Amino acid sequence: MSDFEPRPDTCYPKTERSRIRREHHLGSYERADVHAILDASPLCHIGYVIDGAPFVTPTLHWRKGNRVYWHGSVGSRFLRQVDGAPVCVTCSLMDGYVLARSALNHAVNYRSAMLFGTAHVVDSLDEKAEALRDFTDDLFPGRWDSLRPMTEKEVKATSVLWMEVEEATVKVRTGPPNDADESDVPVWAGVLPMRTMLTTAQPAPELPTSIGLPDLLATLIASGRLR
Amino acid sequence: MSDFEPRPDTCYPKTERSRIRREHHLGSYERADVHAILDASPLCHIGYVIDGAPFVTPTLHWRKGNRVYWHGSVGSRFLRQVDGAPVCVTCSLMDGYVLARSALNHAVNYRSAMLFGTAHVVDSLDEKAEALRDFTDDLFPGRWDSLRPMTEKEVKATSVLWMEVEEATVKVRTGPPNDADESDVPVWAGVLPMRTMLTTAQPAPELPTSIGLPDLLATLIASGRLR
Repeated sequence: MSDFEPRPDTCYPKTERSRIRREHHLGSYERADVHAILDASPLCHIGYVIDGAPFVTPTLHWRKGNRVYWHGSVGSRFLRQVDGAPVCVTCSLMDGYVLARSALNHAVNYRSAMLFGTAHVVDSLDEKAEALRDFTDDLFPGRWDSLRPMTEKEVKATSVLWMEVEEATVKVRTGPPNDADESDVPVWAGVLPMRTMLTTAQPAPELPTSIGLPDLLATLIASGRLR
Repeated sequence: MSDFEPRPDTCYPKTERSRIRREHHLGSYERADVHAILDASPLCHIGYVIDGAPFVTPTLHWRKGNRVYWHGSVGSRFLRQVDGAPVCVTCSLMDGYVLARSALNHAVNYRSAMLFGTAHVVDSLDEKAEALRDFTDDLFPGRWDSLRPMTEKEVKATSVLWMEVEEATVKVRTGPPNDADESDVPVWAGVLPMRTMLTTAQPAPELPTSIGLPDLLATLIASGRLR
């Protein structure tokens, strides 16, 4: 596929910032594709510019419609300085190494989404508490109501940020190496798949033995999903 | 631990850019700690600034002493524009969700390294070819010599970048939730460990059946390491 025009009804716009320059056949501007990677990825990497220099911090994120949220401590330099600033949120899931007959054709199977927007700090305590509830229940449905309620002090100590997704792209590579035409080279070629999974839950040492693993967590672990 | 002074003989310097602001007890400036995370992580996220805005791209990296390398296509806007520019390279390995009795004490077990430096493009074809050999053999020892040799055209089509690590920090969290003092709250608490592994190798469809999986790849898969 050559450099295509995204459909305005289902896609994020193609702009100078978001235009896919390389390997168009792996790319998409589809909102559904972007959201799928965002929702499958346990963490994201957020890029900020501070005094002209780049900073990349890993954090958990959550999505509500076209907004992406993340949180942090009110003491963080990033969170205090980025209100109103452009940010780039990238989620990457690595699915395997692709080994080919030539170095050039080696590749990675992956799913990645790169999102652009403007960071905003949530000011209202009520909105912050609601966002943190969304965060918790998005990862572990229903958990919020079972917890010791958050205190006002705790809500005040937490920063919540969000951005409207203005532009976004995804790239996805799957499948075997692309050099079947060189199969006369006598070297192993194929894919080493990589998989991330939740393993056996470890109860806290002091947890009363009467409290078993909730069904929802057992289901999450068994699902093969990460969130 | 309060905000400590890193030992100059074994640590990266603490600067305004790299100073650990939050949760000092999880942090380190030790070169060995930084290198360990860099060497264990299959990919990194690189932050660039282009026209004042942040971009975060996932890529594979490799290390040689105190230098970090990465590569890309000569057509990439990032690689062409960042020669001499400040970059931030972040590696994150997520090891589990930490579920506590209160929302605030929920956490993630993780290992992350954030490195700062100045990007440089490798110009010489010979140096580039040598770097790409390092890249291949760093991931899959001995593989380079078994491949169809790279052509000059292929070397020319590939960009290699590097940075000297000027400043770097790591943060690591391990263990159960920190709220054993709230164990009277009747909710499950503990860790949902997350693990990433290489799974069963998938030979390319056209691979002659006479070519088996090399021992080195079988060993890598069995090792539980990702590189």
